[in-house]
Amino acid sequence: MLIKILGSAAGGGFPQWNCGCNNCEGVRSSRILARPRTQSQVTVSSDNINWHLLNASPDLRQQIQSDPQLQPGNHELRNSPIRSVLLTNADIDHTLGLLLLRESQPLRVYATDFVRGLIKERNAYFRMLEQFSGQTEWQTLTSHSFVDLSGRDDKFSSDLTAQIHSLGGKPPFWAQNARQEEDIFATIGVVLADKKTGGRLGFFPGVKEIDEPLLDILKTCDVILFDGTFWDDEEMPRLQPGSRTARQMQHIPISGPGGSLDLLSKLPVGIRKIYTHINNTNPILNEDSAEHRWIQGEGWEIATDGLEITL
Amino acid sequence: MLIKILGSAAGGGFPQWNCGCNNCEGVRSSRILARPRTQSQVTVSSDNINWHLLNASPDLRQQIQSDPQLQPGNHELRNSPIRSVLLTNADIDHTLGLLLLRESQPLRVYATDFVRGLIKERNAYFRMLEQFSGQTEWQTLTSHSFVDLSGRDDKFSSDLTAQIHSLGGKPPFWAQNARQEEDIFATIGVVLADKKTGGRLGFFPGVKEIDEPLLDILKTCDVILFDGTFWDDEEMPRLQPGSRTARQMQHIPISGPGGSLDLLSKLPVGIRKIYTHINNTNPILNEDSAEHRWIQGEGWEIATDGLEITL
Repeated sequence: MLIKILGSAAGGGFPQWNCGCNNCEGVRSSRILARPRTQSQVTVSSDNINWHLLNASPDLRQQIQSDPQLQPGNHELRNSPIRSVLLTNADIDHTLGLLLLRESQPLRVYATDFVRGLIKERNAYFRMLEQFSGQTEWQTLTSHSFVDLSGRDDKFSSDLTAQIHSLGGKPPFWAQNARQEEDIFATIGVVLADKKTGGRLGFFPGVKEIDEPLLDILKTCDVILFDGTFWDDEEMPRLQPGSRTARQMQHIPISGPGGSLDLLSKLPVGIRKIYTHINNTNPILNEDSAEHRWIQGEGWEIATDGLEITL
Repeated sequence: MLIKILGSAAGGGFPQWNCGCNNCEGVRSSRILARPRTQSQVTVSSDNINWHLLNASPDLRQQIQSDPQLQPGNHELRNSPIRSVLLTNADIDHTLGLLLLRESQPLRVYATDFVRGLIKERNAYFRMLEQFSGQTEWQTLTSHSFVDLSGRDDKFSSDLTAQIHSLGGKPPFWAQNARQEEDIFATIGVVLADKKTGGRLGFFPGVKEIDEPLLDILKTCDVILFDGTFWDDEEMPRLQPGSRTARQMQHIPISGPGGSLDLLSKLPVGIRKIYTHINNTNPILNEDSAEHRWIQGEGWEIATDGLEITL
């Protein structure tokens, strides 16, 4: 399995268009040592030819432009090596990119019924993915299920199996009036396993809490891409009074008691741990910061755009 | 008035992610002489400090990133020199970028009631522009009206007046079930006049037909940015049988009898005429093509990303 991190920032990217925080101002002016990042996007392949997207970032057009492997390989009027998209929730930074794939390309989209309903039934824009019968084929994900990632055509089957792990949670802010049932699968994580190599990737860009079932599944992975949105719970309210905390935005912070650095220290050594979906305000983006050095000392990496992993 | 063309391609951009047409394949492989283009986006300013967007492209984050003048100028947590957005219709390539401006930035948006209703009432995503009371202030445009472009604050007033010209037309494909009344202002064009310099820009990126009232208003302009989407009416069906024609997509083609090259030849010499919103399939993108040379010979320019004009 080949894994490419095309984007490693949270919603808004880094720098964010209207942000004057220390990080954003610092990276714009080159005053701090930090790398610009586009919004969170991962793509995976088991054959280095056919690609499957994990979520669909608002920066997807730019991200495809930056990688020749994701571009059309022949002269057919409509062709793309992108076979499917798997959605982990309905956040704008995870779903808006679907609308950038609207140009008459047959596409398979994996999502829970809840996520599909939110984005498709509440946003008429998505009719652009139904310009002709069968343009987009939605495949339902259910919790604890396994699904083989493949394209619309049998010849586009992959060696990748996705194991779905429900993380509960609430609908995103823009859909807060959605029904709130017990088990709505608003957010999922996924473990991708390569049937040939046995390699296992854990993809968990949005996690509100870490419990024993999640730890159990993370323990089975070779590499985990994990929610690194915020350094601490008060990061946003401290900068902007009245803002929601990290946990209110359904992101477990990295630091502090009960943070991901603490709780995931129980994972076996040998698992490669990478923070991704990093908010522009997070001090780990500054490569000279104490926080950056600290998490590296704890055995964590920080995702950058362009990072590739083979499993 | 300073005018910047940040993006000059039609929806999908150039090259388009899933397109293997002669142009897209050619520009990717450098086989043809052509410049990549992001999706149609213009920004204007009368003081070179405060900026107003004409439409909001899906590539807006990348376009802002490419221009330091559009980036925050100080250390305030939230700040931007972008004061307003004026929408000419509800097409995805003209409106999706509003969702890229969702990060708690007070914004003024000028649109007809019809366009505002389509995008805001039919797409729950837009609740992100209403996270707090007064985040987005919508200003209604009516046909043949004049409006002074300004930001939310009196100190952000500009010397620019927008004169609205209704172009009729239908709602975009994704909203085809919208009510079809006689005068729905589905698409408008705008003439921007600088009260100090007297300079006049005509912005008409989507025009289905050219009639006498439109010719009359174009005649008053110093520069026109005009719909250059398709070279001829059959451009898409010829490449992809079953596709809608240019006119069915509400774009007057450039060439042929009744095309824009023909009908706008009646304009006085001295008006600077620039085609923009150019579809990836349009042969004028190839700078070695007969079509490219032809329209240049007819006194037209072809917009490129980064083009700046002072009026």
